[in-house]
Amino acid sequence: MRTNRVREIWNAGGNVVNGWLASSSSYSAEIMASLDFDSVGVDLQHGMIDFDQALPILQAISVQPATPLARIPWNDPVWIMKVLDAGALGLICPMVNTAAEAEHLVQAMRYPPHGFRSFASVRGPLYMGPDYAKNANDTVIAFAMIETRTALDNIAEIVSVEGLDAIYIGPSDLALGIGHPPAPDPTEREVLEAIEHVRRTAVDAGVVPCIHTAGGDHAKRCFEQGFRLCTIANDVSLMRKAATAEIALARK
Amino acid sequence: MRTNRVREIWNAGGNVVNGWLASSSSYSAEIMASLDFDSVGVDLQHGMIDFDQALPILQAISVQPATPLARIPWNDPVWIMKVLDAGALGLICPMVNTAAEAEHLVQAMRYPPHGFRSFASVRGPLYMGPDYAKNANDTVIAFAMIETRTALDNIAEIVSVEGLDAIYIGPSDLALGIGHPPAPDPTEREVLEAIEHVRRTAVDAGVVPCIHTAGGDHAKRCFEQGFRLCTIANDVSLMRKAATAEIALARK
Amino acid sequence: MRTNRVREIWNAGGNVVNGWLASSSSYSAEIMASLDFDSVGVDLQHGMIDFDQALPILQAISVQPATPLARIPWNDPVWIMKVLDAGALGLICPMVNTAAEAEHLVQAMRYPPHGFRSFASVRGPLYMGPDYAKNANDTVIAFAMIETRTALDNIAEIVSVEGLDAIYIGPSDLALGIGHPPAPDPTEREVLEAIEHVRRTAVDAGVVPCIHTAGGDHAKRCFEQGFRLCTIANDVSLMRKAATAEIALARK
Amino acid sequence: MRTNRVREIWNAGGNVVNGWLASSSSYSAEIMASLDFDSVGVDLQHGMIDFDQALPILQAISVQPATPLARIPWNDPVWIMKVLDAGALGLICPMVNTAAEAEHLVQAMRYPPHGFRSFASVRGPLYMGPDYAKNANDTVIAFAMIETRTALDNIAEIVSVEGLDAIYIGPSDLALGIGHPPAPDPTEREVLEAIEHVRRTAVDAGVVPCIHTAGGDHAKRCFEQGFRLCTIANDVSLMRKAATAEIALARK
Amino acid sequence: MRTNRVREIWNAGGNVVNGWLASSSSYSAEIMASLDFDSVGVDLQHGMIDFDQALPILQAISVQPATPLARIPWNDPVWIMKVLDAGALGLICPMVNTAAEAEHLVQAMRYPPHGFRSFASVRGPLYMGPDYAKNANDTVIAFAMIETRTALDNIAEIVSVEGLDAIYIGPSDLALGIGHPPAPDPTEREVLEAIEHVRRTAVDAGVVPCIHTAGGDHAKRCFEQGFRLCTIANDVSLMRKAATAEIALARK
Amino acid sequence: MRTNRVREIWNAGGNVVNGWLASSSSYSAEIMASLDFDSVGVDLQHGMIDFDQALPILQAISVQPATPLARIPWNDPVWIMKVLDAGALGLICPMVNTAAEAEHLVQAMRYPPHGFRSFASVRGPLYMGPDYAKNANDTVIAFAMIETRTALDNIAEIVSVEGLDAIYIGPSDLALGIGHPPAPDPTEREVLEAIEHVRRTAVDAGVVPCIHTAGGDHAKRCFEQGFRLCTIANDVSLMRKAATAEIALARK
Ligand SMILES: [Mg+2]
Ligand SMILES: [Mg+2]
Ligand SMILES: [Mg+2]
Ligand SMILES: [Mg+2]
Ligand SMILES: [Mg+2]
Ligand SMILES: [Mg+2]
Repeated sequence: MRTNRVREIWNAGGNVVNGWLASSSSYSAEIMASLDFDSVGVDLQHGMIDFDQALPILQAISVQPATPLARIPWNDPVWIMKVLDAGALGLICPMVNTAAEAEHLVQAMRYPPHGFRSFASVRGPLYMGPDYAKNANDTVIAFAMIETRTALDNIAEIVSVEGLDAIYIGPSDLALGIGHPPAPDPTEREVLEAIEHVRRTAVDAGVVPCIHTAGGDHAKRCFEQGFRLCTIANDVSLMRKAATAEIALARK
Repeated sequence: MRTNRVREIWNAGGNVVNGWLASSSSYSAEIMASLDFDSVGVDLQHGMIDFDQALPILQAISVQPATPLARIPWNDPVWIMKVLDAGALGLICPMVNTAAEAEHLVQAMRYPPHGFRSFASVRGPLYMGPDYAKNANDTVIAFAMIETRTALDNIAEIVSVEGLDAIYIGPSDLALGIGHPPAPDPTEREVLEAIEHVRRTAVDAGVVPCIHTAGGDHAKRCFEQGFRLCTIANDVSLMRKAATAEIALARK
Repeated sequence: MRTNRVREIWNAGGNVVNGWLASSSSYSAEIMASLDFDSVGVDLQHGMIDFDQALPILQAISVQPATPLARIPWNDPVWIMKVLDAGALGLICPMVNTAAEAEHLVQAMRYPPHGFRSFASVRGPLYMGPDYAKNANDTVIAFAMIETRTALDNIAEIVSVEGLDAIYIGPSDLALGIGHPPAPDPTEREVLEAIEHVRRTAVDAGVVPCIHTAGGDHAKRCFEQGFRLCTIANDVSLMRKAATAEIALARK
Repeated sequence: MRTNRVREIWNAGGNVVNGWLASSSSYSAEIMASLDFDSVGVDLQHGMIDFDQALPILQAISVQPATPLARIPWNDPVWIMKVLDAGALGLICPMVNTAAEAEHLVQAMRYPPHGFRSFASVRGPLYMGPDYAKNANDTVIAFAMIETRTALDNIAEIVSVEGLDAIYIGPSDLALGIGHPPAPDPTEREVLEAIEHVRRTAVDAGVVPCIHTAGGDHAKRCFEQGFRLCTIANDVSLMRKAATAEIALARK
Repeated sequence: MRTNRVREIWNAGGNVVNGWLASSSSYSAEIMASLDFDSVGVDLQHGMIDFDQALPILQAISVQPATPLARIPWNDPVWIMKVLDAGALGLICPMVNTAAEAEHLVQAMRYPPHGFRSFASVRGPLYMGPDYAKNANDTVIAFAMIETRTALDNIAEIVSVEGLDAIYIGPSDLALGIGHPPAPDPTEREVLEAIEHVRRTAVDAGVVPCIHTAGGDHAKRCFEQGFRLCTIANDVSLMRKAATAEIALARK
Repeated sequence: MRTNRVREIWNAGGNVVNGWLASSSSYSAEIMASLDFDSVGVDLQHGMIDFDQALPILQAISVQPATPLARIPWNDPVWIMKVLDAGALGLICPMVNTAAEAEHLVQAMRYPPHGFRSFASVRGPLYMGPDYAKNANDTVIAFAMIETRTALDNIAEIVSVEGLDAIYIGPSDLALGIGHPPAPDPTEREVLEAIEHVRRTAVDAGVVPCIHTAGGDHAKRCFEQGFRLCTIANDVSLMRKAATAEIALARK
């Protein structure tokens, strides 16, 4: 059976550079997955992507070496089960605010007896191999997004939830949630302290700390801080950034 | 009635910075069109885009100020008429090699008595205004791509075709066509001379010289050479370029 | 085997009221087909509809009693064969200007020995029954659009083409083609005479005369004139007309 | 920044004529938005429209002056956040039966500290301008549908919810909910009294009263009654109505 | 009005052979529905099908005699109401574990006063006839999937829920739920006993027992056991099975 | 660079078992490609598949070991170039009747100086590796379908065309073309002799003989006859065959 490269990198002590997709094109998805990303996440929350578009995107990522991940729009069994069936090897769930919510996420992602994921042979065995069902509970990664004041208050309980693999900080929402303007690469001391507090609490509980960053430079700082997976901007913001630079050169 | 901004810029003596879309996402299309491009072209030839996807893309461009253009896949009335109906204000036609082919292109793009475009009220009046039908022949721009040895041989006849507004050089195909490796920003003297020969012949015939470039810097040089519209890389290559740079920063 | 209701109505001496689809929605297609139309045509020429969207539209029409027809974008074997495979029981081909073009249309629509349509079991047998292949040549209807000055000049030869079932006048293009403004319900004497000349020439050759009209009232006049199939405005123009009226009531 | 025209009309004391979309076509959406509607709502509840289709529809509306609204299928954060991200400037939520449900709706639509909408830069800033995030809480309009007996019982509490902008009556469901046949333009005294009671309670609480109507004439009566936004039939019912009338003319 | 053939077969004492769709193609859907199935279910839970794809699939089934059913992804009003609006005549709901959940399912599927389904004229009247709304509560079939240990514990209460028409056993999930490997055609005695217990309890309560099977042979045994509807493998597993056999023949 | 497995098998003296896709689902495509087929062809001629659907299908095939091929709908540069750009490693072109048509096919498939394929970096380098452009002319396979009387008459000239790699017999069309009923596994002596004549003429010219068959058993006979690639029924006919068998078992 194929393995989940993100878990392998983590097990080997390495860090994961994650790409992000906000557009529904399976073509740009395959290009992103062909670059030097370790994994690529399909953003079903804020991306302009629906489930039917996620399927060819996940297939397109599967052509290339990067590991397919997804951010689901909410802690909702419909999305959790369908996106896992479609072949995502990890789910990033927004706004996990309590241990109960984290438990719901984990349970919906695991086959019995560890959860209530419904069993079927879909893209798992097709992409990963015939042992998928047997190994799925240990293969797919559960990421809980920590991005509200409530989550901050409950962080110790959240990271104690059995089966939660990772937390994933959304700096903009977290900043907003604790009373600051939403900043992708925050500089407010209170926000930075909250981020570090979450990271440390996760690490202490054996949960992998991950974060959404504003780009490669921000990611590098976060890796140095101890984060183990950093998302470095999405397809359309990368496009926008490069286009803006090229237009400026053309108009110079 | 709304006007064709590309024509206006040209009439005012200015140059046009053109964006390019190879992905089928109407979301990334709208983002591209929101940047400082004068026009954005939907690439139905080498882009992974089909007609049904071109409609929402052209609508998305229409939300923003940039002028919607399209490259059709071939000198084929099906594509010419459908893409004009969908609201493109200019068509870039690949591999126009003879005056007869240029005439076919122009005729298919014009209502009688100047051509044989079939009349219907579709997105033209919706986007441009009720006078669209009356003004369409003078509004939509016919670009003939010059990118083969045959076209080079026939360039004087091609640019003499009544109603042809512009030529558009495809440097990679042109280089390949005259025996050199395909290079987006060619350096071979023979290729450069061919490009300048085409440009000058067009200008002398009152036809606007346009070119596909490898980016903003190349475009700047082409504008200085006398080109009046430069396409500066497409959505997915911009994304790839920026992603590669950010990954390098993250992994530094 | 199911029969082609349009042929049946004609054989019984009746007239056909035809609906028209310019939008890609299979939902509005099914609604149109549920109304008192004898047939509904999918407009792949000026409608914002592509082949992949035509399949569910043709399926949706097949739920209801109306006979599925289609206007193809051009006299092109790709479209002719694919749209017949998808289940259209008649094809309206734009801009048939010569007998040779009419012959090409007919040949592409018929299996050997009467033409060169390629054989396969697709939606024909599924929708019509197991005898589809045997009867297809006699079932599907070939309509040649007469809408240019050249077609007018060649009308006698065009209607003499073996296997051509019907001509279909496009009044707007025809008016434009002979030097008048495009009018869906023409009033210029020259246009009206041309229309009647085409109609009469067709009838004399045993070819069924059909026409695109501006609405029910225009259709009624055309039926009285001797036309046997009238298209009475498309989905989106009907919507626009009713919406305009309701808005006026609301704002009164 | 662009403004929400519906709020402007209300602030100026005017009434809003709202169009409605039940078909997934971005083409018919753009046509509807080009007519004299003040706003056009995408019906994700009873329309045959899914999220991925709502994006190009919302973009198509954005080409034209009408304000884009949407009815979400349920009081569900997935739909609320995704449809706002896609550029809707108001959400009509079905079956809001209690103050708690109205609060949930409002909270899911507002960024902290006024709610728990997750922050991201998607179509808001693209369509509305760079200040979108700052002004979104005051820009997007929260409409709670009142259409059950329970809602009727709780109407005073519902309209007291901080941040609820408008109520929107669904006459058919409301009639059905209180024991009468579903009628788009109800005539039963009990239904009419319930509607007036809801309207008056809303007005007294400073909440804007809105209603789904059976057409322009019904809307006119509702405006006279004091409603400030009336939806006047959807794309496909308008199409059906006009088609039925034209068929009758043709068959006369 | 058209009738629900599944109910008719049951009323006549017969058994229902149900097909199953996991692929999003409306073409393969129509083919499946043209075979000798009594009904065909669209699997929105484990199938790679989204709502927008379910509409043309349900339309395609409606072209043929088989009754359209659907499995929704979860006991969620969004899916329940939208899929009913799209024309499904029965909904199979996964993981119904308690009487309260069964009641929620039933209520969401029924118009008042029997539930809280929201009223609108969509595909129901289009496909079934003008009396759809009046008869819908008695026409559409509510199936609760019994596939967990909790459901097993609560089976007596679940089948007592007013308005629940049928239970539908998912053998793989049920096996997994009670501690056995997931087997589509279970042989473990405990699983077989659980299945029979559920079946009998349903029958005793006047609820129709239905089951997902591993194929025709398994279905035959289940019919003999007293099941009244058996699903016999989905489109893609049928394809896979036949392809594997043909490849073996070719390679022999 | 990845290689074209079909060429490798042929070079090693082996035979190719080819699958066939007529449905637009990228999910069933990936399943087919995961089976023991050497290659899988996307049928853009008689399949219900359009270009935009071919992209995710070709990506889905690329996840698995089978080589992606395609049948284009006609000898048309639009389809030839777009489908090659999308990653097909061989094109099967219907109704190649003359050497001139075969030359057109080959030229449209080859970059200069061997043809007039337009150069661009699309899925070729993404899927095959950075050397794609350099090796494409030697990698992609040109198959000419021989399926008419004219083609039979011209077979010697057709197989002499420089750069034509293979011929591909369509037995049904060929039978029909020479006056027999269309039979997927023909038994008429004249048809069998024509098939053998084409095969032998191809082999003598160094062109690989390939054929569309009615299934594994037919394919086995064709391999024994000397054919080197056999297509053994498509996704939907396999599904239909297995479904029919399972229904019979269930109803026994
Ligand atoms: Mg299950
Ligand atoms: Mg016309
Ligand atoms: Mg053939
Ligand atoms: Mg967030
Ligand atoms: Mg309602
Ligand atoms: Mg080129």
